[in-house]
Amino acid sequence: MKAPRLTLIALPGLPEVCAGDHLAELILAAMDGAELSFQAGDVLTVAQKIVSKAEGRTRRISEITPSAQAIEIAEKCQKDPRKVQAILDETNGDKSTAIVRIAEGVLIVRHQQGWVCANAGIDESNLGADKQGELLLLPLDADASAEKIASGIEQATGIRPGVVITDSFGRPWRRGLLNVALGTADVPPIVDWIGEQDAYGRPLTVTQQALADEIAAASGLLSLKNAALPVCLLRGLHWQGTKEASARTLVRPLNEDLFR
Amino acid sequence: MKAPRLTLIALPGLPEVCAGDHLAELILAAMDGAELSFQAGDVLTVAQKIVSKAEGRTRRISEITPSAQAIEIAEKCQKDPRKVQAILDETNGDKSTAIVRIAEGVLIVRHQQGWVCANAGIDESNLGADKQGELLLLPLDADASAEKIASGIEQATGIRPGVVITDSFGRPWRRGLLNVALGTADVPPIVDWIGEQDAYGRPLTVTQQALADEIAAASGLLSLKNAALPVCLLRGLHWQGTKEASARTLVRPLNEDLFR
Repeated sequence: MKAPRLTLIALPGLPEVCAGDHLAELILAAMDGAELSFQAGDVLTVAQKIVSKAEGRTRRISEITPSAQAIEIAEKCQKDPRKVQAILDETNGDKSTAIVRIAEGVLIVRHQQGWVCANAGIDESNLGADKQGELLLLPLDADASAEKIASGIEQATGIRPGVVITDSFGRPWRRGLLNVALGTADVPPIVDWIGEQDAYGRPLTVTQQALADEIAAASGLLSLKNAALPVCLLRGLHWQGTKEASARTLVRPLNEDLFR
Repeated sequence: MKAPRLTLIALPGLPEVCAGDHLAELILAAMDGAELSFQAGDVLTVAQKIVSKAEGRTRRISEITPSAQAIEIAEKCQKDPRKVQAILDETNGDKSTAIVRIAEGVLIVRHQQGWVCANAGIDESNLGADKQGELLLLPLDADASAEKIASGIEQATGIRPGVVITDSFGRPWRRGLLNVALGTADVPPIVDWIGEQDAYGRPLTVTQQALADEIAAASGLLSLKNAALPVCLLRGLHWQGTKEASARTLVRPLNEDLFR
């Protein structure tokens, strides 16, 4: 019996990404450099950091004036009030839902895009040697970021890969970080097996497969934190493209949230 | 530049697993059938369901008498009180920490092994056509289950693969299920990058990579819910074996839990 298999390839040779860079072009050049070319059914994972850099999603800490609320929260969680202000600015500002947990060294918020994560996903590391004092924010619309990469590659090659924009999040109850999907193009974020049967012909009950998060997590196996490998190619995955889905469907609606 | 790559292979041809079966033997036979042989550095993922079946971790619903507490909880979450009793029996029984959330159709508990998950991981599907009315419980010691598989393969082949026992869990704030690591042999559950530097020479701050959970999640890409592919082989991963680690290190200690 032929064993189903898939291959995950980390793309070397990407340059440091700057605001205004076209990621599709950089990825295509790196593919050439690695003697790879796109095939139908390929999926790309792209780390949020290079997406945010390309989109110029930075703020200079010295230009931020913290509000009274930011100063109060900063005292509780022992963070720089200006960074807390930047974090609050990434939420929707709704006091009842924006702040999820405050503890020493910990500020977990609900990003305006719905993601619940530490520090609204704002990052200081990997900003480049001359970027000290800058904060890197999450993309404004990570689905659009993914779409732009997929379209750019399609225009150049005639092959349109699925794209998943990833970031590493912590989670309750389990230690360690795991990559999750912030944005998708074509790749269905969730595959719904409801109505399908298990191997013994019984109806499956709990059956929502978080496909885009599985892809994101898998990419973490090659995109090590201390290596410059922000793009992975996943080849051999059995998937059906969708134009309608958004990675926002991975965000559990507030009315289903048992853990505010 | 050579692109780092890894391959994930789903192992076909495993028979229905029964209590008392030796998984290492079944896996070796399936490897032969798929014309595969183990190589140094291989990692196996094994779905909890076949581990629990091999270990006979079943309970017959008709033999369970629910307690008053189980009946009360069952009313709140609209579940069979006997199933609720089975779920409570899988916790450590500590009322202040065992039950994490109750809602309609939802009972999230802390398993005695520390895992926070729906229904204590108890499963009814995929039990086999003649097993209606039986519940499948999580393994008693999933690290030991992993160790037994790794040792069995080592004894037969001289090559000792890393092993990760997986189960699919839901999570707060994000929809869909994702495979996580319940037990490990040799594979470090968490890789700690603290003290390392990012690509620009700045110290990394948040840097605990949940490696075993990444491996588990990746296996979900091939082990589709409605296919009988409970074992995957991961080849090409760069990892360093450890004898000391337990998948229990992925469980966040109670005193760090902000989401009881």
